[in-house]
Amino acid sequence: LKSLLNCMNTITILGAGRSATAMINYLQKCCEKYHWNLVVCDADPELAKAKAGQSSRTSGIGLDATNEEQRGAVIRGSDIVVSMLPPWLHLLVVKDCLRYHKHLINASYVSPEIMSLDAEAKAAGILFLCEMGLDPGIDHMSAMKIFHEIWEKGGKVLSFRSHTGGLIAPESDDNPWHYKFSWNPRNVVLAAKSGGRYLQDGTVKYIPYQRIFEQTMPVEVHGEGLFESYANRDSISYIDKYGLNDIQTIFRGTLRKPGFCKAWNALIKIGLTDEVLPISESVQKTYGQLITSLLPDAQGTLAAKVAKLLGESPDSDVISRLEWLGLFSDHLVSPQASTPADALEQLLLEKWSLKADDKDMIVMHHEIDYLLEGKQKGLTSSLVCKGSDSVDTAMSKLVGLPMAIFIKDFMLNGCTLTGLHIPVSPEIYIPVLKELEEAGIIFQDQHF
Amino acid sequence: LKSLLNCMNTITILGAGRSATAMINYLQKCCEKYHWNLVVCDADPELAKAKAGQSSRTSGIGLDATNEEQRGAVIRGSDIVVSMLPPWLHLLVVKDCLRYHKHLINASYVSPEIMSLDAEAKAAGILFLCEMGLDPGIDHMSAMKIFHEIWEKGGKVLSFRSHTGGLIAPESDDNPWHYKFSWNPRNVVLAAKSGGRYLQDGTVKYIPYQRIFEQTMPVEVHGEGLFESYANRDSISYIDKYGLNDIQTIFRGTLRKPGFCKAWNALIKIGLTDEVLPISESVQKTYGQLITSLLPDAQGTLAAKVAKLLGESPDSDVISRLEWLGLFSDHLVSPQASTPADALEQLLLEKWSLKADDKDMIVMHHEIDYLLEGKQKGLTSSLVCKGSDSVDTAMSKLVGLPMAIFIKDFMLNGCTLTGLHIPVSPEIYIPVLKELEEAGIIFQDQHF
Repeated sequence: LKSLLNCMNTITILGAGRSATAMINYLQKCCEKYHWNLVVCDADPELAKAKAGQSSRTSGIGLDATNEEQRGAVIRGSDIVVSMLPPWLHLLVVKDCLRYHKHLINASYVSPEIMSLDAEAKAAGILFLCEMGLDPGIDHMSAMKIFHEIWEKGGKVLSFRSHTGGLIAPESDDNPWHYKFSWNPRNVVLAAKSGGRYLQDGTVKYIPYQRIFEQTMPVEVHGEGLFESYANRDSISYIDKYGLNDIQTIFRGTLRKPGFCKAWNALIKIGLTDEVLPISESVQKTYGQLITSLLPDAQGTLAAKVAKLLGESPDSDVISRLEWLGLFSDHLVSPQASTPADALEQLLLEKWSLKADDKDMIVMHHEIDYLLEGKQKGLTSSLVCKGSDSVDTAMSKLVGLPMAIFIKDFMLNGCTLTGLHIPVSPEIYIPVLKELEEAGIIFQDQHF
Repeated sequence: LKSLLNCMNTITILGAGRSATAMINYLQKCCEKYHWNLVVCDADPELAKAKAGQSSRTSGIGLDATNEEQRGAVIRGSDIVVSMLPPWLHLLVVKDCLRYHKHLINASYVSPEIMSLDAEAKAAGILFLCEMGLDPGIDHMSAMKIFHEIWEKGGKVLSFRSHTGGLIAPESDDNPWHYKFSWNPRNVVLAAKSGGRYLQDGTVKYIPYQRIFEQTMPVEVHGEGLFESYANRDSISYIDKYGLNDIQTIFRGTLRKPGFCKAWNALIKIGLTDEVLPISESVQKTYGQLITSLLPDAQGTLAAKVAKLLGESPDSDVISRLEWLGLFSDHLVSPQASTPADALEQLLLEKWSLKADDKDMIVMHHEIDYLLEGKQKGLTSSLVCKGSDSVDTAMSKLVGLPMAIFIKDFMLNGCTLTGLHIPVSPEIYIPVLKELEEAGIIFQDQHF
């Protein structure tokens, strides 16, 4: 095995955007130390070169990931491929990795298409490790470490609720939504579109999109105060993946500061997250006119009409948040906005972008109930991590480091797993969580 | 021209489902009279043969429309092709028609992809006539006839509202929803998913899906009583197509009996029209359990919980309609249902299917305001048409006859139009409306 591993020396990263920075920096140092090569590819060759920097072990190249020939050439020359591309491009990369027998790592949710390639990957003796970022990623690893400890003591997990939010640190929080973008704004605008599914006290619960920001759960994180959590996709699919066969409650949620979800739900009700309605008319319009077009007929000011639609008072917190965004103003909607979701995204980019010195903040909070020696016990495990500024963000660190650390460990020590995996095995999570801890990324536990 | 026309002798119909019956019967008689040939194709060869019947001029053949070779062979041998296939297959047929220079007729909305082939069709000297059924179809033709009459007198159209419903005749109406399926049930379940857009008193209005069944308009049809109308797709795109440049109001709507829309909106709010939530669990469940899974936690009976979610009284009309459907019952959800929309469709198929002797009913109602010699005038024009039974439906007649009559006229007299069209020109609508009138399909006008 060691001799095989010695042959592995080229790591390729596809996509050099904001969330790749911490990973590139980490792997660059590894490459210098161990004499490996790092190839950083991006649609923008200048960005790829800038991110690659001056290291003799790292090269930055322009790559059109939709171009089969270019993509194939880069992947053929790699040993491990990291895809930081948008999810719809993953499948192309995965198929190339199958063809050329290369290992693949990414931080995205496993799609059914990629899931179906498990057996082929196994037969080829290669590893596809997905969901290896923050959430999904660190949440899987830190929770599985707790489950394994409970199981080793002979305990049984009864309930698992896990919440993660990419938020803004209190010292940089200067807006009434208490939120700024630390990752893809489009994904925030379209969040939760496919609804949510979870298990509560033995009953399967579905939440359709139009109610997902209404049915939130309060979450208190020690030292950080109160948050609210809305259902994050399909939690039930993790019962098998985690091996929690007899569990009664499983809920994965996304954290926001209190009041965010009610106000976001107002945007949904008005229709501003709609990505199909055509709004590009020949005449350019203001946000006030866009909202007027979306509202049923009513009397009064625009704020009063919106309040009526929502069943809110015109001086409510929800209305003042909408007003702060500029939704009732004469601010012009860009002619490029072809749906309400486009127009909303553009407005939010002006209002919710990190300033140069702003610090983002990641909060992850697990709540676990388990049975041990006939007694029911509780445990919370929380992680809070702040960024340094708008470039060196907590988001970039916590999404990128798990992949980077795993890759280093894989290159040095190998991995017995082949086929499609998410990081639930001790073989994967032990070295990664250990090194994250050494870097100060530490969970605080409370037992009761 | 006449000699060219004499060469045209083969009409091909792709798709022999329920709504093709009246068209096949009509064209079969034409083919016998004029010595043309009719080819009826369907994925089900038995259905194609049965619909083709015993006429020596008509043949029925099995065809997999997704098979390029089979499809190409049939289209190459035709002069005019009618596509009654599902909309996603139209583009394949249209491209073959371009390749082999064949005319194409269908009853579906023009997609942007088909729209983009207008110039190529014109260059090839062929006609693509779309939206040539009931709605879209007869609505375009009957409205354009009125507009042309107003314009000829020097008048100006101020407002146009047009409503159409495929409903159940009062004598066959035996359910509290006052509705049964006379066309594709899937389309009814997913109706209005892309929201609505219209113009009202000079203001563009958008309605997102989650409010489209709330913002309905009452419509009184002389002799038929009261209906309600919800926005049908994008009405604004018809301003240019109809040539109504200075119009202040344009609204195309779908008619239902009063109370339907409020109760349908309840299904949307519960999440039953959702087509992404995965509901196929390992354990089979009842409709009552499905609804419980979709509801937020609350006290009381299932009906009481639903009433609470909707802000309705448990003895309201809405709740009794939901109860009549069996949504609170122990009736089992089919294991094939993988989303709430699937489960709803299966339940509605049991409840809303036409019985053998049931008569369906089409109601179309135009409301037009116009300016003539300085005075504002009003006009309503209404069509009511009932089917004979569950096979010989008004829907099949009114969708199929416009295409059939046009094809006969085209074969006998030609058409000066080439490229992509919808039926707004007198050259198309005059002969079709005339023959529909002779068949008893007559609009009643009221002036005021």
